[in-house]
Amino acid sequence: MKVFAGNSNRHLAEAICNYLNLPLGKASVRRFADQEIFVEIQENVRGEDVFVVQPTSFPANDHLMELLIMVDAMRRSSARRITAVLPYFGYARQDRKAGPRTPISAKLVANLITEAGADRVLTLDLHAGQIQGFFDIPTDNLYALPILTRDIVANYDIGNVMVVSPDVGGVVRARALAKRLDCLLAIVDKRRDRPGESEVMNIIGEVAGKDCILIDDIVDSGGTLCNAAEALLKNGATSVTAYITHGVLSGGAVTRIANSKLKELVITDSIQPTTAVQSAPNIRVITTASLIGEAINRTSQEESVSSLFD
Amino acid sequence: MKVFAGNSNRHLAEAICNYLNLPLGKASVRRFADQEIFVEIQENVRGEDVFVVQPTSFPANDHLMELLIMVDAMRRSSARRITAVLPYFGYARQDRKAGPRTPISAKLVANLITEAGADRVLTLDLHAGQIQGFFDIPTDNLYALPILTRDIVANYDIGNVMVVSPDVGGVVRARALAKRLDCLLAIVDKRRDRPGESEVMNIIGEVAGKDCILIDDIVDSGGTLCNAAEALLKNGATSVTAYITHGVLSGGAVTRIANSKLKELVITDSIQPTTAVQSAPNIRVITTASLIGEAINRTSQEESVSSLFD
Ligand SMILES: Nc1ncnc2c1ncn2[C@@H]1O[C@H](COP(=O)(O)O)[C@@H](O)[C@H]1O
Ligand SMILES: Nc1ncnc2c1ncn2[C@@H]1O[C@H](COP(=O)(O)O)[C@@H](O)[C@H]1O
Repeated sequence: MKVFAGNSNRHLAEAICNYLNLPLGKASVRRFADQEIFVEIQENVRGEDVFVVQPTSFPANDHLMELLIMVDAMRRSSARRITAVLPYFGYARQDRKAGPRTPISAKLVANLITEAGADRVLTLDLHAGQIQGFFDIPTDNLYALPILTRDIVANYDIGNVMVVSPDVGGVVRARALAKRLDCLLAIVDKRRDRPGESEVMNIIGEVAGKDCILIDDIVDSGGTLCNAAEALLKNGATSVTAYITHGVLSGGAVTRIANSKLKELVITDSIQPTTAVQSAPNIRVITTASLIGEAINRTSQEESVSSLFD
Repeated sequence: MKVFAGNSNRHLAEAICNYLNLPLGKASVRRFADQEIFVEIQENVRGEDVFVVQPTSFPANDHLMELLIMVDAMRRSSARRITAVLPYFGYARQDRKAGPRTPISAKLVANLITEAGADRVLTLDLHAGQIQGFFDIPTDNLYALPILTRDIVANYDIGNVMVVSPDVGGVVRARALAKRLDCLLAIVDKRRDRPGESEVMNIIGEVAGKDCILIDDIVDSGGTLCNAAEALLKNGATSVTAYITHGVLSGGAVTRIANSKLKELVITDSIQPTTAVQSAPNIRVITTASLIGEAINRTSQEESVSSLFD
């Protein structure tokens, strides 16, 4: 078993290797003067079970091409099996037609990864489980929920916690957390009665006096989260914290969150935190290295990964 | 027949549509906040013969993904046939293994374009003809030589012209031009006797008193060209001009060329010229719009394109 990494999340790849007690595989993933990617695998992989850790986070196109070219190089170097490890799967939100004559980019990306020569794919909290069905090769989708749960239990008086879904689309995910914590569930229901009118935030559930935990898979602009925090506090919540697996944090998201009423935003390292994220006053990053490391270990030994979710 | 364009060379796409007397197809190719690409084809393409003009020039990964996502959207919109038009084919220089455990990225890109759903590919002066063999779908590779030849004939006293290949790898291409112009051929033979020693430029052929025309397919850093110009002038050439199909012009290439002894660099619009290129004192751009437009016209009518090379 050998673990390699592109440039999108070397910190996580190194932490995974640390967990596995393996050196990170030697590979050079550089740019030519015109910014085309050049890859050179610098150690033998013939007959090896190879894992390429490369979340396709911002800049998604560059990181995806690094992954595809690395997989191409691995295949041409006679690797026995190649697993693409994408803790964050870029283009996942384009998982269905958004309108007439639009692409399904998540399916395209699945096809590209397969075409490049990946034999298996390992993901974490895929935006939609259906994306596993876009692949004809084996996939394993890990859940961050056990890690998030442990962190919540360590930091909160569970008796006073209320799990909150920031929108109706996230209720299933929120319910899974509430069930695990054995606590109540509330929902923020955004409504815009007429186009152009401003959104009204209805809170379904009694949040007064509660420590609210917002849960979701992706935080992008942070707008939804900050508005939800505001609405929850207006409804008497004691505090609002958000636990979100993937910290996309586009544009002014870090500043928006710093200036918000959120007590804390907890994200994972599925996307390598920028220095802005690292120095943000109310953002904390928890690592998925042992979860992913253990999944790599087990799949390499043809063992089940399902017990990782207990 | 409908012609669409991504964002890499809208000038050329519009000029092609002008030649064809067609409006450019309506499509929105935008970015989300996290810079993922979003495509929306804004007119009906059901049953249509569709051409997507999108050279995969800098930034190659973004332009390639735009192309792939557009092709995906076209396919899902029931286009009858989709031709990917790549006047410049990014990653073409990675057309063979550069060393052990390296990719063949040009082949990967060919597979990705096919996998996205292109039915045919139209290229211009491919870096290596072999790249056509990387595709299992039909390809047409156009030659800029007739356009370049016409420009040379219009600007030079052919009796005094010497065609020069800037390196031994380009002799076949240079010979084709020399034959067309019915003039002599010289070669710049760069040699480095020992690693670390500086390159020696040997000129094969008698260039004294001649107007030298350097010809090649790609100008990237411009270093080779500027050094060749210097060597040719030292050997008594009257003037040195370069005719190069694809103006990649990375890094400080435009400045390097402006400060060089090159009388002029003539490139085509296979890559959309930057404002720096447009305002450069000694770079001139000639258009391939009618060549590509005519090729689109003929292939759409199932006619041969070979007479375009006469
Ligand atoms: N990168 C992106 N950034 C923002 N929105 C996106 C992105 N990709 C897809 N979307 C949109 O997000 C919506 C899907 O989100 P969801 O309903 O949470 O699955 C669709 O309307 C998509 O058009
Ligand atoms: N984008 C690029 N920029 C500079 N050199 C490249 C690029 N892509 C490939 N190469 C190198 O260029 C050489 C091929 O050029 P050629 O011999 O002209 O076909 C190989 O050594 C490649 O590694």
